[in-house]
Amino acid sequence: MDSNILTCALGAVLIMSLVSLGYAIYKTRWIFAQPVGNEKLACISGYVANGAMTFLGREYRVLIPFVLLVAVFLSLANRGQLGFQSLTFALGAACSALAGFIGMKVATASNARTTTAAEGGLSPALVLSFTGGSVMGLSVVGLALLGLFAVIFAVGLAFAGRQSAAMTETGLPLLTGFSMGASSIALFTRVGGGIYTKAADIGADLVGKLEADIPEDDPRNPAAIADNVGDNVGDVAGMGADLFESYVGSIVGCIILGQTAAAASAVREELVALPLLLSALGVAGSIIGIRLVGRGSRTSAQGALNLGSYLAALISALGAYPLFWFVLGNHRIEGAGYNQIYLAFLIGLAAGVGIGMLTEYFTGMHRGPVNAIVKACETGPATTIITGIGIGMRSSFMTILIISTVLLASYMIAGLYGLGISALGMLCTLGIQLAVDAYGPIADNAGGLAEMAEMPPEVRSVTDRLDAVGNTTAAIGKGFAIGSAALTAVILFIAFKEQAGIQSIDLTDPTVLVGLFLGAAIPYLFSSMAMGAIGRAAFAMIQEVRRQFREKPGILTGIEAPDYNRCIDISTSSALTEMILPGLVAALAPITVGFLGGTRMLMGLLAGTTVSGVILSIFMANSGGAWDNAKKSIEEGASEGKGSASHKASIVGDTVGDPFKDTAGPSLNILIKMMAIISLVIAPLLKSYWN
Amino acid sequence: MDSNILTCALGAVLIMSLVSLGYAIYKTRWIFAQPVGNEKLACISGYVANGAMTFLGREYRVLIPFVLLVAVFLSLANRGQLGFQSLTFALGAACSALAGFIGMKVATASNARTTTAAEGGLSPALVLSFTGGSVMGLSVVGLALLGLFAVIFAVGLAFAGRQSAAMTETGLPLLTGFSMGASSIALFTRVGGGIYTKAADIGADLVGKLEADIPEDDPRNPAAIADNVGDNVGDVAGMGADLFESYVGSIVGCIILGQTAAAASAVREELVALPLLLSALGVAGSIIGIRLVGRGSRTSAQGALNLGSYLAALISALGAYPLFWFVLGNHRIEGAGYNQIYLAFLIGLAAGVGIGMLTEYFTGMHRGPVNAIVKACETGPATTIITGIGIGMRSSFMTILIISTVLLASYMIAGLYGLGISALGMLCTLGIQLAVDAYGPIADNAGGLAEMAEMPPEVRSVTDRLDAVGNTTAAIGKGFAIGSAALTAVILFIAFKEQAGIQSIDLTDPTVLVGLFLGAAIPYLFSSMAMGAIGRAAFAMIQEVRRQFREKPGILTGIEAPDYNRCIDISTSSALTEMILPGLVAALAPITVGFLGGTRMLMGLLAGTTVSGVILSIFMANSGGAWDNAKKSIEEGASEGKGSASHKASIVGDTVGDPFKDTAGPSLNILIKMMAIISLVIAPLLKSYWN
Repeated sequence: MDSNILTCALGAVLIMSLVSLGYAIYKTRWIFAQPVGNEKLACISGYVANGAMTFLGREYRVLIPFVLLVAVFLSLANRGQLGFQSLTFALGAACSALAGFIGMKVATASNARTTTAAEGGLSPALVLSFTGGSVMGLSVVGLALLGLFAVIFAVGLAFAGRQSAAMTETGLPLLTGFSMGASSIALFTRVGGGIYTKAADIGADLVGKLEADIPEDDPRNPAAIADNVGDNVGDVAGMGADLFESYVGSIVGCIILGQTAAAASAVREELVALPLLLSALGVAGSIIGIRLVGRGSRTSAQGALNLGSYLAALISALGAYPLFWFVLGNHRIEGAGYNQIYLAFLIGLAAGVGIGMLTEYFTGMHRGPVNAIVKACETGPATTIITGIGIGMRSSFMTILIISTVLLASYMIAGLYGLGISALGMLCTLGIQLAVDAYGPIADNAGGLAEMAEMPPEVRSVTDRLDAVGNTTAAIGKGFAIGSAALTAVILFIAFKEQAGIQSIDLTDPTVLVGLFLGAAIPYLFSSMAMGAIGRAAFAMIQEVRRQFREKPGILTGIEAPDYNRCIDISTSSALTEMILPGLVAALAPITVGFLGGTRMLMGLLAGTTVSGVILSIFMANSGGAWDNAKKSIEEGASEGKGSASHKASIVGDTVGDPFKDTAGPSLNILIKMMAIISLVIAPLLKSYWN
Repeated sequence: MDSNILTCALGAVLIMSLVSLGYAIYKTRWIFAQPVGNEKLACISGYVANGAMTFLGREYRVLIPFVLLVAVFLSLANRGQLGFQSLTFALGAACSALAGFIGMKVATASNARTTTAAEGGLSPALVLSFTGGSVMGLSVVGLALLGLFAVIFAVGLAFAGRQSAAMTETGLPLLTGFSMGASSIALFTRVGGGIYTKAADIGADLVGKLEADIPEDDPRNPAAIADNVGDNVGDVAGMGADLFESYVGSIVGCIILGQTAAAASAVREELVALPLLLSALGVAGSIIGIRLVGRGSRTSAQGALNLGSYLAALISALGAYPLFWFVLGNHRIEGAGYNQIYLAFLIGLAAGVGIGMLTEYFTGMHRGPVNAIVKACETGPATTIITGIGIGMRSSFMTILIISTVLLASYMIAGLYGLGISALGMLCTLGIQLAVDAYGPIADNAGGLAEMAEMPPEVRSVTDRLDAVGNTTAAIGKGFAIGSAALTAVILFIAFKEQAGIQSIDLTDPTVLVGLFLGAAIPYLFSSMAMGAIGRAAFAMIQEVRRQFREKPGILTGIEAPDYNRCIDISTSSALTEMILPGLVAALAPITVGFLGGTRMLMGLLAGTTVSGVILSIFMANSGGAWDNAKKSIEEGASEGKGSASHKASIVGDTVGDPFKDTAGPSLNILIKMMAIISLVIAPLLKSYWN
């Protein structure tokens, strides 16, 4: 360690990661100290928690051999100290898996407690559900920073006193290994979780709501528990792993871009320190924001959540300026001074908010787009689908306008390094953003439990208000996840070029164009696999629910108890079997193209997948979100109201939207990041293979 | 004209274009000499023909001022002899419009005559409908070649005796002007026609089939005539204009690539002559193929059509070899001799067939994919939609594999010029391929007329058999149209680089990446506009049909006559109003980005739109085709059969698929070609603006 500033940054990262994890533990103990509620609630909530843990346990049992296999491959492919890449890979996987485990454990403990807290009104229920979510947010950023600290610190120790060029040559691959470990877990958690949750949801909806005419979350529905488990598996663990990966990827990418930009080696270490310090600052801002929301609000849950997020963003924005000034001083990076680079940081921070607002417009209730779908429901399911697809596509174009503006503006202001910093800006306050995201499924579950445990209507009304806010935050969270994935992927893509030692890739070279075509087609293949998997899993679930209703007519009259476990088992096995193939596509595509088609075709492939994947992902997420809220609007009395033909049409829209917004769409985020990070890991191999 | 080989090629083109047009006139006279049939048939067919001509007339009245405006702009923007570009632009527009007019006129004259011929069995009905289609095919290739001949001949005359470098400098922009003229008409015809046909179709289906429970093409349905008019407007005129554009674009693109490749000016004129000779050869092959089909078949319509197409392809494949040998001799183009370039030609020819077969697999009846949708229909409309989308996406990936293989193989074998030649190979036998395409809607209309005129069941059975074949040929035709559009766009894209004087475009330059993002998002914006337009138009149509049923209850009992004209008018006005905005997007996007963002961003934009547009287009076309045939399968007795819940679900799928496969999907072909050709036209302006 020969630089004070890097030591200082590592110290800050270590402290903030420990503070973050400590605060998460403190919050977890508080949650477990709260009353679970009456026996029925505790029993049903136990079912959900057991189902979720069973799934996660079985999933990790599939993933551990996979992680070990990749680690062995990495240690065989690399020589010398690079062999440690297999260790950092395993560490990244372990951190991501642990964050997912903690998030799920706490989320499934918070749901029944939120229902019970709802007896005391909105404010305590909000505090409980948000606290549950904040454990997830704090664990993710805490473990991510702790892991990064460990890797960088170890590299620093090993190379103490030696040339910094040798240090970066070994250090960067170790960082990408960590990032790839996080990626691997994220892919399977997102895809597996997405399949689980939607098989259960579609099965529950199609037979329960449309055929048997019983309400959502009715305890008579055999798939009801699986449906609630799915919310945790998909929206808590899946979303957490996704953003863990983006967070790590953006920090690692930014460090790599910094090393390339630092022509004068005098700032080499400063440019490693800067992203670390900014992340530590973001964690501080997030914790303060979380504390603000944790005080609760008597009037508006949305208001409290917004206030906390804005405060965290404000703290980061204000605190970053002195950091940039202190670290960079009079150094110019690619011609840009600290003022310009700070501006790029602000652009990223603002874009995160901008994408959230745009998503809210396109998917929020009582807005033009959702109202258009409500109107289309009056002419049947076909026009409902057509209108929703049109809206999703338009929203996708608009979001791309924002992403393009961020890319262009930060690049023009502060060069490639500015790009990296703007991605970091967007993800800086991830702690609180993830807390807000994870609050949604907890509130949703709390509502489901209230229904199943037949709680009084006042309780249900409070959880409904929490849940409505949760839908909006979920939509915003998805927009944010995609936007940050896009920026992270672009940064990793440019970092790959540096690591593979490529000077320039000519877009009009047909080899590159072929890569572009193939790359752009991969998200379609991947989505079709995900949709197909859900189709098969949902079909099995539908047959099972129908079978139970047929063979035990007492279920519908409330005399017989449905067999929840069969449904949980169908979702679990389907998810675990069906996640393998899309996972292999994501992992093998860049390796195959890289070694058979060459680095030029691989660059084309990455660019194609990034661009096409981002657009497809936004389209799917927003169409799905808009259909969901169109259905909710009708249920709240818009158009012809609940039970009408419009309502049935809106349920079709919502059901089509389910795999769009909760499986295929979000999984694409990981696909694009994972393909980029795998390419980055094999970049040194490709370099020596093709030279 | 200082080269014998070019004179010879121009002679061949002139002769084959005149033969083609002469043969079309001869066939037209023959069709008009056939009996129309009984009075009721003649009356209904007159309605359809009138509706189609009214639409085309009103559409052209909108387009003429637009064409004049662009022509004025072109003559202002260009100096000297380049001012003639406005003339070639107008000529291209006029040729395309004339081909559309002839095709529609003959198609609407052939439908009733096919119904009448069906009284005599399959063979005469096949001959009549196919002859109607072949007039379209022959007119398109005849007018395209005649126009190209006129432009090249005029350039040759004007530059007689002067340096060939000056000639290409003026000649190429005049050719791109012609191509852009064809493009403009194609865009509006495809988009306008697509909106027309689907507004009518959805309106007729949703109210007629699902609500009033009357069969398709029932004369009691007020939208029935508009629906049949739509088939002609969309599938005949729209498809014709689309492929006219691809045909011209691939020839022009190939000539430009040839001029760049011809480092040794000794082969400059040979490389202009080669594409012309190959096209003339393709026309000859097509005419022989058409004559073979024209003999009819007692047993299988599909067999006869296939035989004709294969014969035409075989003649082109065999005849091309001596041509390559004769024209190129011992010259090597980018290192490739005539053998290699001939191989690239064969690859293109084979890929056209390959894409057709793949499309047939994914959308054909009694195949895995369509059967999967049939099964999904049993669990309701939502799973029907999800399964269909998954299948469309998978087919899209597979088709991209073929396109990528063609691009890579022809480039590796014969360089950039090989790419151009392979696109030409695919489009070489367009004459007969378009004849087969246009046969479909004629057969469809013949069936509709048989139903409306209450013809005996034997007649309906013959037209049903023709129509079933037509569905397959339509799917194959769409796959072919997209594949050829993809290759054409790639060639125009590379030609743009040459014309704009760009050396290399670095894919990792963020400016290029931003272009790529924006470009990839444009097909989504464009599709959302098209879907939105159909949503609005179909809504108006649905309200109108419901109103008529409500206000005149006698319509359903057959006592009162419905008001067909109101429905025709709704479709016409919607189409004309709604085609403007997407048209402007396509036209203005490359101009805006080119002048504001620069040529690098424009190159990114074009690459993004091409890649994303092709994939989205295939996905939409094939999902739509598969839903259509899933519905047909159920109507023929698969699953729970006609009138069941499965059948209703399949109708929802089909209705969602309608705008996918007949409006948004095919319009994207034009979008990508048009953006490329506009860029090519403004390339000289951009070059001087940015230097």
